[in-house]
Amino acid sequence: MLCWVDGQPVESLSVKDRGLAYGDGLFETIAVSGGQPSLLQRHLTRLADGCARLRIPVDLTAVHSQLLAFSQQLGDGVVKLILTRGDGLRGYAPPEPAQPRLVLQAGAKPVYPSANAELGVRLFPCVMRLAEQPVLAGLKHLNRLEQVLARSEWHDAEHAEGLMLDTSGRVIEGVYSNLFLVNAGVLVTADLSRCGVAGVMRAELLAQAAALGIKCQVRDISLEELLAADEVMLCNSVYGVWPVRALQAHGWSLGPLTRKLQAIARDLLDC
Amino acid sequence: MLCWVDGQPVESLSVKDRGLAYGDGLFETIAVSGGQPSLLQRHLTRLADGCARLRIPVDLTAVHSQLLAFSQQLGDGVVKLILTRGDGLRGYAPPEPAQPRLVLQAGAKPVYPSANAELGVRLFPCVMRLAEQPVLAGLKHLNRLEQVLARSEWHDAEHAEGLMLDTSGRVIEGVYSNLFLVNAGVLVTADLSRCGVAGVMRAELLAQAAALGIKCQVRDISLEELLAADEVMLCNSVYGVWPVRALQAHGWSLGPLTRKLQAIARDLLDC
Repeated sequence: MLCWVDGQPVESLSVKDRGLAYGDGLFETIAVSGGQPSLLQRHLTRLADGCARLRIPVDLTAVHSQLLAFSQQLGDGVVKLILTRGDGLRGYAPPEPAQPRLVLQAGAKPVYPSANAELGVRLFPCVMRLAEQPVLAGLKHLNRLEQVLARSEWHDAEHAEGLMLDTSGRVIEGVYSNLFLVNAGVLVTADLSRCGVAGVMRAELLAQAAALGIKCQVRDISLEELLAADEVMLCNSVYGVWPVRALQAHGWSLGPLTRKLQAIARDLLDC
Repeated sequence: MLCWVDGQPVESLSVKDRGLAYGDGLFETIAVSGGQPSLLQRHLTRLADGCARLRIPVDLTAVHSQLLAFSQQLGDGVVKLILTRGDGLRGYAPPEPAQPRLVLQAGAKPVYPSANAELGVRLFPCVMRLAEQPVLAGLKHLNRLEQVLARSEWHDAEHAEGLMLDTSGRVIEGVYSNLFLVNAGVLVTADLSRCGVAGVMRAELLAQAAALGIKCQVRDISLEELLAADEVMLCNSVYGVWPVRALQAHGWSLGPLTRKLQAIARDLLDC
């Protein structure tokens, strides 16, 4: 496995790393095709935003150049980028100054059943809810026990993703995807100011849809509204867009806006 | 630094570890005196409970024997024990079967100003709130960004700890301590079923206080009740008990129940 830690080809890191101790860091999962990272600027921008919010002093230029060099070596696949606050001493207080650590891990592009994209997926109704924590909401940070427990709720291949609500019952996202619905031609996705991960594909699809004149709304979504939607889809930066065809006994049809966003995502991911 | 990873004297671990990727694990901070871990059974019981709730398949007997051997080598100090779900493949789904990883790190006993225990400490009023997540509440898991951000709110030596409320405004705990108050002779500590870390010192002090005939209550606490309390104290498994003397302009007196629990903690920690 191709793996760099701070630019060195090693596959281990110090047990003192605060990423291990506290989940004190961020990550990005980046599709790479022909040596080029997809959605590069959006990934770097989100990482910069996350570092600013967690006050991790990052050299974005160095991250950028390491990521490009790593992607060149990889060729085709997926890069998991982890940026931590680096080693800690004892206790929660961040060291001053922190020396952040950059981990780049290569993986193969995951192979999903073609039916996921062509016919749509079935959502598992996760019992696990997302806690409301505005200070961390939207960040792709390393505190991901909620997702770990949600993903462990189902083991069958029939469900490709799980639906996550927040502790107040609002519809938020999939376990590893963001969610859109279409209602009377309007594209709607959840407000992620209380919880959830603000995906780069979600941001890019919102921008491109708006540029195409499609009306977009980012706001709270109830389960009732989800069930009544004309179309439902999921997205992330690796697989692109999957239509959602069912949640338990409820079914949705595959619609034109889903197909349009799917085509946009395919262009972005070069797949 | 004395450090073992799965019983081997190394100071690094695989970048694939799910403790790094997702904070998918638990930790314990254990005071060691004369080669003996303090509050050993309580630490092991909490670890076992945490593993059961996160469904991490742990061999507690092996953990126990490694911890004892490590503590013998250490002599006097603090052991940070981290138990993760071990290496992962790609994605949140836990590997089946998981192969948990045990990290033991030694540190010196922290030296706090003697005034903390003798005269009491001043609490910093943290702006950071604890999110309400019943599924993870009470666990000493590795998702600790809330504590990292709370602890980074103050830098002066005047505040030894910070007060954390939950997102509904209830009084929960310190950043690295649990909190007790005394009201008309009753010992009260926060209900930790929505958030917070259920400390082993808190559990032991509750048990010993009850055995002494002191009336104990575990329930919600409002900020108003905290301010009106006769005594306020903090505890953890390393420093024992500190009286709390002030929060901003508000002050508390040092009382007899605080002194009693402090003596119990000193016996437990052999300090």
